[in-house]
Parts: sequence; structure tokens; C-alpha cells
Amino acid sequence: MLGNTFGRLFRVTACGESYGCTQDANGERYGGALAVICDGVPAGMELSRDEIQAELDRRRPGTSPVDSPRLETDQCEIFSGIFEGKTTGAPVGILIRNVDTEDIHIQQYRAVKDVIRPGHAEYTYRAKYDEYADWCGAGRASGRETCVRVAAGALAKKILARDGIEVIGYVKELHGIKMRDGMSFDEIRANRDKNDIRCPDLEAAERMVQRALEVKEQGDTVGGIVELLARNVPPGLGEPVFDKLDATLAHALLSIPAVKGVEFGDGFGLALKKGSEANDIPYLDGDVIRFRTNHSGGIDGGISNGETIVVRMVVKPTSTISIDQDSVNMATLEPTVLSAITRRDAQICGRAVPVGEAMMAITLLDHLMMWKGYDAVSKVQHKLPWRPAGS
Amino acid sequence: MLGNTFGRLFRVTACGESYGCTQDANGERYGGALAVICDGVPAGMELSRDEIQAELDRRRPGTSPVDSPRLETDQCEIFSGIFEGKTTGAPVGILIRNVDTEDIHIQQYRAVKDVIRPGHAEYTYRAKYDEYADWCGAGRASGRETCVRVAAGALAKKILARDGIEVIGYVKELHGIKMRDGMSFDEIRANRDKNDIRCPDLEAAERMVQRALEVKEQGDTVGGIVELLARNVPPGLGEPVFDKLDATLAHALLSIPAVKGVEFGDGFGLALKKGSEANDIPYLDGDVIRFRTNHSGGIDGGISNGETIVVRMVVKPTSTISIDQDSVNMATLEPTVLSAITRRDAQICGRAVPVGEAMMAITLLDHLMMWKGYDAVSKVQHKLPWRPAGS
Amino acid sequence: MLGNTFGRLFRVTACGESYGCTQDANGERYGGALAVICDGVPAGMELSRDEIQAELDRRRPGTSPVDSPRLETDQCEIFSGIFEGKTTGAPVGILIRNVDTEDIHIQQYRAVKDVIRPGHAEYTYRAKYDEYADWCGAGRASGRETCVRVAAGALAKKILARDGIEVIGYVKELHGIKMRDGMSFDEIRANRDKNDIRCPDLEAAERMVQRALEVKEQGDTVGGIVELLARNVPPGLGEPVFDKLDATLAHALLSIPAVKGVEFGDGFGLALKKGSEANDIPYLDGDVIRFRTNHSGGIDGGISNGETIVVRMVVKPTSTISIDQDSVNMATLEPTVLSAITRRDAQICGRAVPVGEAMMAITLLDHLMMWKGYDAVSKVQHKLPWRPAGS
Amino acid sequence: MLGNTFGRLFRVTACGESYGCTQDANGERYGGALAVICDGVPAGMELSRDEIQAELDRRRPGTSPVDSPRLETDQCEIFSGIFEGKTTGAPVGILIRNVDTEDIHIQQYRAVKDVIRPGHAEYTYRAKYDEYADWCGAGRASGRETCVRVAAGALAKKILARDGIEVIGYVKELHGIKMRDGMSFDEIRANRDKNDIRCPDLEAAERMVQRALEVKEQGDTVGGIVELLARNVPPGLGEPVFDKLDATLAHALLSIPAVKGVEFGDGFGLALKKGSEANDIPYLDGDVIRFRTNHSGGIDGGISNGETIVVRMVVKPTSTISIDQDSVNMATLEPTVLSAITRRDAQICGRAVPVGEAMMAITLLDHLMMWKGYDAVSKVQHKLPWRPAGS
Repeated sequence: MLGNTFGRLFRVTACGESYGCTQDANGERYGGALAVICDGVPAGMELSRDEIQAELDRRRPGTSPVDSPRLETDQCEIFSGIFEGKTTGAPVGILIRNVDTEDIHIQQYRAVKDVIRPGHAEYTYRAKYDEYADWCGAGRASGRETCVRVAAGALAKKILARDGIEVIGYVKELHGIKMRDGMSFDEIRANRDKNDIRCPDLEAAERMVQRALEVKEQGDTVGGIVELLARNVPPGLGEPVFDKLDATLAHALLSIPAVKGVEFGDGFGLALKKGSEANDIPYLDGDVIRFRTNHSGGIDGGISNGETIVVRMVVKPTSTISIDQDSVNMATLEPTVLSAITRRDAQICGRAVPVGEAMMAITLLDHLMMWKGYDAVSKVQHKLPWRPAGS
Repeated sequence: MLGNTFGRLFRVTACGESYGCTQDANGERYGGALAVICDGVPAGMELSRDEIQAELDRRRPGTSPVDSPRLETDQCEIFSGIFEGKTTGAPVGILIRNVDTEDIHIQQYRAVKDVIRPGHAEYTYRAKYDEYADWCGAGRASGRETCVRVAAGALAKKILARDGIEVIGYVKELHGIKMRDGMSFDEIRANRDKNDIRCPDLEAAERMVQRALEVKEQGDTVGGIVELLARNVPPGLGEPVFDKLDATLAHALLSIPAVKGVEFGDGFGLALKKGSEANDIPYLDGDVIRFRTNHSGGIDGGISNGETIVVRMVVKPTSTISIDQDSVNMATLEPTVLSAITRRDAQICGRAVPVGEAMMAITLLDHLMMWKGYDAVSKVQHKLPWRPAGS
Repeated sequence: MLGNTFGRLFRVTACGESYGCTQDANGERYGGALAVICDGVPAGMELSRDEIQAELDRRRPGTSPVDSPRLETDQCEIFSGIFEGKTTGAPVGILIRNVDTEDIHIQQYRAVKDVIRPGHAEYTYRAKYDEYADWCGAGRASGRETCVRVAAGALAKKILARDGIEVIGYVKELHGIKMRDGMSFDEIRANRDKNDIRCPDLEAAERMVQRALEVKEQGDTVGGIVELLARNVPPGLGEPVFDKLDATLAHALLSIPAVKGVEFGDGFGLALKKGSEANDIPYLDGDVIRFRTNHSGGIDGGISNGETIVVRMVVKPTSTISIDQDSVNMATLEPTVLSAITRRDAQICGRAVPVGEAMMAITLLDHLMMWKGYDAVSKVQHKLPWRPAGS
Repeated sequence: MLGNTFGRLFRVTACGESYGCTQDANGERYGGALAVICDGVPAGMELSRDEIQAELDRRRPGTSPVDSPRLETDQCEIFSGIFEGKTTGAPVGILIRNVDTEDIHIQQYRAVKDVIRPGHAEYTYRAKYDEYADWCGAGRASGRETCVRVAAGALAKKILARDGIEVIGYVKELHGIKMRDGMSFDEIRANRDKNDIRCPDLEAAERMVQRALEVKEQGDTVGGIVELLARNVPPGLGEPVFDKLDATLAHALLSIPAVKGVEFGDGFGLALKKGSEANDIPYLDGDVIRFRTNHSGGIDGGISNGETIVVRMVVKPTSTISIDQDSVNMATLEPTVLSAITRRDAQICGRAVPVGEAMMAITLLDHLMMWKGYDAVSKVQHKLPWRPAGS
């Protein structure tokens, strides 16, 4: 793999698989883990393990009937980059051990290791890494890798908060059931984490959970749409022409497993509009320029315009289903049937919410640092001689 | 700006504005130009200016009543990287002079240089670059910059073609008018360039052109959806976890001006599906593994699966309209009215087609090179001593 | 910090400090660790912890009287990227716990935390990270970080070995004592690890150790020169014009603490030569092109020429000395005296050897992957349909 | 090639060959050119072509008897990124046409196109790009490519100057003749451009020119050492651990053709020193921390310490000599003799001076931007609402 680092100034590098190392070439056994190294963390920021853990707990499986019953505790350890309660400027390293790694599950995966699980990545990993790809619990392709994104995102959120920037996500739609329109940012924030599906419209949430459970009964799964908002993003973030804010956000969000599309503002709805209906008209709010509408999702010309950033991502139905499916054995090149699998998420939209927030926060922070660097080089000159701060 | 380079191994770096330099600090006047430097071009490939020009001519404005009447000839010059008819391995440099730069148009832009044009990037560029951003014809934010993407894309397409990989794009939908379903790749390729709108369904195309002209009469513009296909992409392209094929394609496509969303395969339609409806079932076609459906758009786990890559991007209605719009003067901070503008595209979907193809080709080639490098390091060992080829 | 990742295709990301985390903002205490994530590792390669450990043991302190007595065992754990004894293609994560972290040492550092230790990085870290930089044992600036370089280098060496490429290093000169000329690659390899100073000329090594001990007696330290060789590097590695092989090797080697200069082939000696004395004359060895001399150090025009790559790096004397030194307290801005420090390396050339080898191997592997990717895209075409290997 | 871009925030991308395109696959002929695209240029800076040209004129050949007689005028055109006399924030594109491209010289190169010119890059380019590498005047491997480095460097110098940072270079030693010690920065700056060799010690300069002419008479060439100084660099530049200031400067300088080694401060001399002799002792100059000596060359722990940055690079003797040399024909694999070549530089140290300055300036600016971005994200918070500047 060549793609486990993301970002230019705030730079996140991740590793780890679903179950992790079983043994090395000498037969020595290891307990696997996931880890993330976050470079570009500012010095002097108070940081505790609990803050990271709180976000991890939002993503953790096994907490609701509509999620996977896999029992991962996702306990994180910060092993570098903090000292006496504060960040030091050095990269922050975070480790999460895999604990739900009982042999019984490994044996189940072993039994079908050469069989393509429809909707999963066995075939493409086989094409790329031959039979060496870790087949246990989807290996590196497992949604499990997203827990370190959430850990890094917790850090990014905290740094963004110093500039007043806030990122929230929620399930907007599940298998056709939509949350009601017109909820404010504050209302959404206050309610989104109140239910298993992470939908802030509590009435719709109830119907969503109901639908998920019904479909689960049928052995099936459902997809949906997650919406992400970023408030108080100053105008000026985004780097034309190739690293526009929307382009890099899309990169970040589509790197999340199961996400198959991303749209900003009115998104695909713009295909049905005229220019006069799609343009956001500016006006003066006192002596501040604002826009009457937000069809653009807070981004014009690839740069934030000060309005709330609005982006949606579609999350496909969980590929693992409890229904037999036709398949092919990649080793024998024979047709086969993949039997129903019981341990699975009925939907993953709810758990995708903190992951989406994390990737959005990581991306915004990277842009914020680039912009401050660019802006400072334009406007702030150094004064020498320099003296140590606080001296 | 910090974002004018794209790609890791096949790396495209671009510059240039809508009108380009007027004068330097000494008052010396220049004719502006756009340029692109393509690094990572293999040596020994025959290349002529005409091949690049042919693609540029597909994007060029002024060729149809539904496009902008701006008269840019977009003639390219290859000024480095070829020698005696072949590429040398050195970066290919391509220059395109701006020729439609009459003072009358510059004066028109000067008159409204401080006024936000709704849907455009004046405000966000002002936030980022202060009053120094080039205001003439949208400067760097103009769609004009895309011509060098097309030039680089022509090169990428040619290199991809050696592996049999082919990229085509077309307008699938314009302001609600959809092309018919079920057209084959070959049928699409044969017909897509036969009309001004680049829709391969010739009957739908006629209605699209009609709609565009009607709306143009009203002084307005329309949006639509462009679909892109890549055929014969081998399984294995895409770099987990952050640089997945879909993630980087989305990055590439959303960097195109006016694109506000991207989806793969069934895309946002997956929000309405169950897992059993969304999974692509593998089967054996002789001794080759294929998939019965292509809901995934040819990408599983962020890696190509050998099926046709299918991606759609939504193109918003052209922001420039011939209708008065409320606005704000950024210098005086006073409300104002932006008068109707006459020189504009009624839609830009058709012209976005070659740009989308170019960005898709550039991205695929970068992945192809990364994958071959990765794959070769896994499997191909060097033999020494080495001897010059052909000796 | 923004610089903890190195490489484009074989990409190493590191973190960790000398002592590591003491506690977070909640007062929770942690044991610190160093970690490295290696992306770009080919799949299917047998790998065991012992192979990594063997290289780490070559760098480990406390094994000789001329090294630091700090008691770090440097035991590594591979926690991701291997499965059933083989690499999977996923990034390899390696963790090394800090164990020699007794409070007594921390208290010693605390006592002088605001005092500039001459030759060290307190002042520059204070300029960059304010008082938040980890002051314990030099924090991130400690030579301790190099152990993860060695771990990543062990991996790189193993991958390079499949193409027959071999990297060795040794101390060529210590405080004016030089090893004899004319030793062959094989002779050097056989002898370099036979003594505490890692000099393959055993007679010179003895004098070097003697000198180091004498100077240690005086409370002082000495510098020297490490030479690195890479054999069987195929012609063609290096990417003009900015990422030449020598340029990126210099980048890699000068990133090692205490290294202050790098030279290739005849290096600075070329300033005294004429062109006719400096040019390497090619000749035919059977039907293979070779060069009669190697003034260029195996690199012409920034690309390997098939001869042995020869590079030297100067390692400054260890900054920590047992002699009182004038200094300044950065917090009070008052002059002060830094007392003699006893726990230190009399020289670090010997321990710099495996670090230099590691960085050279990492850099060569990155170039090898880029070159294979470039070369393959030029010459190797895909054949579809693709079939799983071994099917 | 995969290495024609340098820098992370101030990012330079270059292309162009010695003679440039002759013709494309259709036989159409072109006049070649070199170009550079500079991304990351701040907006609002006055810029004129003359400022760039002034630096180019310092590098231009044909101006002295100790340089090559090749008649390149190196006239640059700025074709993007400025508007009404100021930079706009968009990437600055600069083009330089090749004009000394008479057929007679091309024919001379054609006659020996398969013959390895000792010290040059024919063989390694052949290994990498087969027979397709441009053989005319060394193609992309020619020192001619450095003129665009100088153009980009002129821009970087100008931006650095706003923070008071100044970079100067000069020839310190030529074929054993050394300039005198103890010249101050100001004295050096005032005198270094007063002679053909760019040595600020005018007496030594005379002897250097004399030596160069003598050796030229013999048909030979000489090497030397260029020293570069950067004054007023604030403490804090450099990104641990891999992108240290010295590491990236070494990368930049060793990418210059003919440079074979780089050292900082006392450099290789440190191999002969003890720690007590090598450590720079800090002291208080008023309330400012300074260092009594500068053995470290202004860089501690990879970060600037506020003292003058001192770096030296060794420039090998020009490879092209007027003496017959044994060689090999790569196409026929037969021994041959390369005849004396008359058009050449007797030394290239003088012309390497502006190139070294340019690369140093480009690197420092990139670090300055990264540092300001990092620093600003640590310390400067945004205030919303934002208002356009000057409104």
C-alpha cells in the first residue's frame, strides 16, 4: 500500500488491521493493534487520553442493536507527543489494541478466506497483494481502521475549536426515511447523539431504528446519507486549483469505507436548477458580507466563504448480510455459495458519523494551517532579535 | 496559492489566468498564457502537437450557440520534453497563449471589479488574496484554466491507451432531461461528440440543446450531470486507505470549476438500497472472475475490480447570467446591483466533458504508475550486469 | 513539527521521544514509546521480529565503554502489517517502548530544563515550540529517535536484498585516526562489526577505541567520519532534476542527529582536482560497461551508474561533555554554568553506522520503487483479463 | 522523470532542456524553452521582469573568458501570476527561450550521441530513458536547466527580503586557491560580484582567474568550493526529524549539477574536533541570546538558531575538457575515443554561485512558510466575522 498518509501540514499516518498480526515468520505470536501518528500538532495544548477516548466511544461497535456485536473496547493510549499534560509540538502517537480476536472468529474467516464476499474487497486486495492480503475480518480493508481516524480527528477538532471552528455530523436519511428539514445547527448538535442511529430528528430516528431492525430480521442491511456541517470556518480556506477545499474534503470523505458519493450544498440537485436559482446572493449584515442562501455549501471557487460548510456522503448498505450469496473461490476458480453471516452491522451510517466528522476536521485543519502559513508570509514580518517567549 | 500541482508519479503542475498578465511593476506589458508541466512522462513515445490540440479543440469555447462566444483559439505549443518526434522522459511543457484579450473586455471587468458576481469566486479570492487577486475574467478562478488540464489529459490518455485503458465522458442529464439508459460503451463513444452538448443519445441531445437555448433566451443558464467511464482498467489500481481510487478521482473531479458533487456506481441511489440489492455478485466467465452487476462502479475497497469505472459529477448552472442580481461592493461595503452579462455559456456541461475525461485520465495514470512500481518491487527483480537497450 | 514522514513510495513515518509521555492533562501517567509506520512494503515477504531486532541491537546503547551507559533494551514489537509469517502489503507498524525512564534521570533533566546545553537543540526547540518542548533527555531531538529509523531500515534492507542490493557502513575516521585504504567491500563487511567502534580495519579500530577512552577520561568527546557503501545498485536510480539520488541521500543522511556534512565519491577532494583527474573513464568489461575509477561515487547526473555508491557523512563530537560550560538560562535570561554531565557517549560514530545504513536503505528503496514504476509504465503493458495469481 | 518539483508550500516546478524540442512526431519543428512555475507566491508584491532578469544575468554564460562561450541571452518572460504590477497569489510562470540552437552545434552533438562523455550523464540517462533521452547539449542533464532555478530564486529572495532575510554566495576556493579568512558579511556582499569568478577577496580572485585560464590553456578544467550565507534567518526554521533545515538545504544544493558534497558550519572539520571545541557557547547580548562561535553553521537540531547560516558545496571540475578521452559507444558496445571539445567552461564555480543562492533561498522560503503556518496555528486565532481588507 502506498496511501496511508493524509494531509500536507497536519499529516495523519495510520496502520493496523481488523485482527492484526497473528504471528511472524518465526511463529512468534503478537496481539495486533492500530496506530496513528499525527504530525503538525501545535505545542502547548492541554491534552488527555479521555478526550480522544470520548470520540472513540462514539464510533465503537457493540453498543446498540443496529450495530455490529463485535466486542472491541477501542481503548487508546497516547504514547508520544505529550509531556506534563501538554502537547510538545512532536507528533502525537496513539495506539489501540485489538482485543476481540478470539480464535473462533479467526477460524470462521479462515474457512472462507478464498471466497469473494460480495461488496467487500477480497477480490481487489487479491488482485493487488495476491494471496498475502490479510483475510481475517477484512484485514486492512475492515471498517475497523476508521477508529484511528476518529482518534486523529479528536485532536484536529480540539485544535480547530481554538479558532471557534466546529464540525458536526448526523444521519440525514436512512433507506428513504429522511429527517425533517429546517433544524438549526444548535438543535442538531444538541440532539444528534441521543439515539443509536445518530439522527437529530428524534421522531425520524425512531423510524430509522425500526427500519434497521426490520431489515436486520430479514438478514439484510440498509444504506443512508450522512450530512456534515462545519461552522465558523473563516473565509479563505482551500488551495486553488487542484487542492480546493471541496476537492480535498471529497478525497477525505470518499476514503472512508462504504462511502460512494459526496456532494456539497445543493449537490446533485443543482442539475435541475437554473443559474438564477443556484446563485447565492450576497448582502450586508451590518458591515459584514453574508449570503442569503447557501446553495454552494459554503464554498465558492474551492475556497470557504464564511457560511456553514455543508457536505453529504452516501453510505452504502453494509455488505455483510445474513443471506446466502453466489460467489467464486479465488484459489480454485470454482463457483461457490457464501453462507449467511450473522455478526454484522444492520447499518453503518450511525457509526460513519464520527468518522466523517474526523475526516472533515483533519482536512479543515490542514487547510487552516496552509492558509495561515500563506497568509502570514504575505502579511506578518519577523522582527529580530528574537527572544524566548515568557522570558 | 498552494495547490497547483496534482499527482504523485504522473504529476501535473499548472498556471495561468483568464486574461493573464497585463503589466509588471515597471509598466512593461505582457501577453498572458497558460502553461502546464507534466512530470512522469515515459520516454520513447511518439508525440505530436496535433494530438494535444485535438483534445483542446473539444473544450474550446465559441464553437456552438450553447457555449460562450469568447474567441480563444487555444493553440498549444510543446516547448520541452520531446525530441526528434518522441518523448525523452523529461517533463513535457505545454504553453497556450491567451489571445482574446481585447481592452474592451478588460474595461468591462474593471468596471465591476469590486462587485461580487453571485456564484463566482470574487469574494473568496478577496478573502484569501485581498484586492490583489486578478479580477479580469475571473483570473485564476476562470474556467479558462481547464484548458491545460485537457492538454495534460491528452498526454495521460495516450499513455493509458498503451495498456488498453480508455476514458470517455458525456452529458447524461441536462436540467432534468436524461439520456436513455442501456447504451453500450462503444455506442456512447461513437455518438457522444456528434452534437454541441456532448450527449450520445442524439434524440435527448436535441432536446437538451433546445432547453439550453430556451433558457438562454430567458437570460438564464442550466446545470447537468456528466458521466465518465474508464474501460479496461486492470484490477489493482488504488492505494488504501487514504488514496483509494475513488477518493483520488473525487479529488480530481471536484477540483474542476462548477462541479459540486461526485458519485460512483449507484452513488446516492445506494441510500435507498438494501445490502442484497447493492452487492455485486461475482461469477466465472470462463476462467475469469467478473461481476454480474456494477453497483460499485468498478471499485471495491478503493481498488479497481476490472469492471468499467463509472463516475458521475454534477455541474452547476453557469453562474454568469443575463439577469440583474443584487450584490455588494467589497471596496465600499455598499449594496449594489450587478447588471446582466451577455457573454456567457448557457451551460458548461458539454465543455466540462473533456475536462472530466482529462482529470480522470491523469488520476488513473498516476495510480497505474504507483501500482506498477509497487507491483514490480514485489515481483520483478533486477538482473545485473545491466546493458543498454538495443545494444 | 511538520517533518516526521520521509519518502514518496516507501514512506516512513516516525514518532517518539527520549523518555516519552509522562502524563496527560488529567494527570494520568503513561510509559512512552517510539513507533514507526512503514508504508509501501511489498506483500508476501517473510518477516520476523528477530530480523528487525538484530539491526536494533547494532544501534543499542550501553554495550560498550565508548557508548552511553543508558540502559535501553530497544525491544521491538511488530503490531501490524504481517499475517501468518508474511507481510500483507499493509503498512508495517513497529513499536519500541522506552524502559530506562527512572525518575532520577528525569529529575536531573528537570534541574536544567531552561538551560541551553551547548551543541544541543534546547534553544532552537524553545524558539519553535516555546517552553512546551519536551526537555527530558532532549525529547524529540534525542538521538534515541534513530532507533525507529534502524527498524524501518531493517525492512528496507530486506526488500533491497531481493534485488541483490546491499548497504554497509563503518567508521572510516575518528578524531584524525583513519582506517587504511584499499579494503574491499567483502573485507569491510566481514570485519566492520567486530569491534565497539565499527571500524573494519581492526588495527585502526583499536587505536580509535583507545583515543575515545582517553578523551572520555578528559571529560570530552570526539567526532569522526562514517562511510556508507551500496553495492549492486542497478543503473537508473534517481529522479532528475530535484530528486537526484545524491540529493535525496544527502537529505536522508543529514536528517540524522549530529551529522553536519555529506560527500559523494571524491567529495570535497574534487575542489583540488582537474577535470581530467575527476572524470571516470568508461570501458567494456566483456559486453558490460563499467568505469575505471569511481570519483563520482557511483552517481552521474543524479542517477546511479551501476558502480558502488560511496558516500561519507561527518559526525560531530557528542555535544554532552563532562566539563563545565558557560550557558544561559532561557527562562530567567541570566548567564549560568552548565555542570559536567556524566552519562554520555564518548563518540557516536559507531552507533551512527546502523542509522546511516538505515537511511541509505530507505532512500534507495524509495528510488527503486519509483524507478520500477516509471520503467514499468514505459515498458510493461497490462494484459487483460486478469486472473488471481496461483489460480 | 519524477523529480521536477521542489518544496511543500513554496513549490517550484521546472522543465526544459539544453536545446529543447527539435520536432514532434509530425515533423513540426519547435523552438525549445525552459519554464518554471512557482506556487505559493504571496499576493500584493510588486514584481517586474527586470528583477528576475538581473539575477539571470548573473548566471548567464558567455560573459567572461573563464566561462562557456555559448551565447544564450536568457531573456525571461513572466506569463502568469502578476497583474497590474503586482503578484496576485496565483502561481508565477516564467519562460526562457533557448536561442543559441544553431544546427552546427546540434550536428556536433549528433556525431557523438552514443558515446559516453566521461563525467556526464549519457550513460545513466541511457540506463533510465533508453536511447530516447535528449542527447543534444546534455538535454535535461545540462547545466542550462539551472537558469530557471535562478529565476525562481529571484522571487524567493524578494519574498525573504521582506523579513530581512538575505542570502549571498561566493567562490571560497578554486583548485586550492583560497580566499582570505575573516571577511565580514557586508564586505563579502560588496565585493563578490566584482570579478569573473565571484570571489569577494579580489586578490585571490585574480589568482583564481589566472589559474582557470592556465588550466584552460591545457585543455583542462578545475573544481572549487562555493560558500553560501543566509543572514537574519529567525530561530525556528526547520522541521524535525526528517525535514531538518540542513537536510533540506543539502537536498536542494546537491540537486545542482556538478555539486558532490555539502557541509554546514565547521563541516568535515568536526571530525578532527573534540566536543569542547565544537560546541557553540551561548551568551547574553543585552537580553538577546547569541552564540560566541558558529561551528554549527547556524543550525542546531535541524533548526535555525538565529546566527548566520553557513553552508559550503563542492563543485567538481567541469566534465567537458579539450583533451581526448577513452570512452565507449553505447549503441555498438565498442571502445572509442571522445575527441577534445572546445566550447566549455574552464570552471563553473562562479556560475554556480547564483544557482546555489537560488536553491538556498527557495528552501528557506519554504521553511519560513511552514513555520509561519505552524506558528500561526499555535498562536494566532481567527476572529469572525471577517471583513475584506481595506474596506
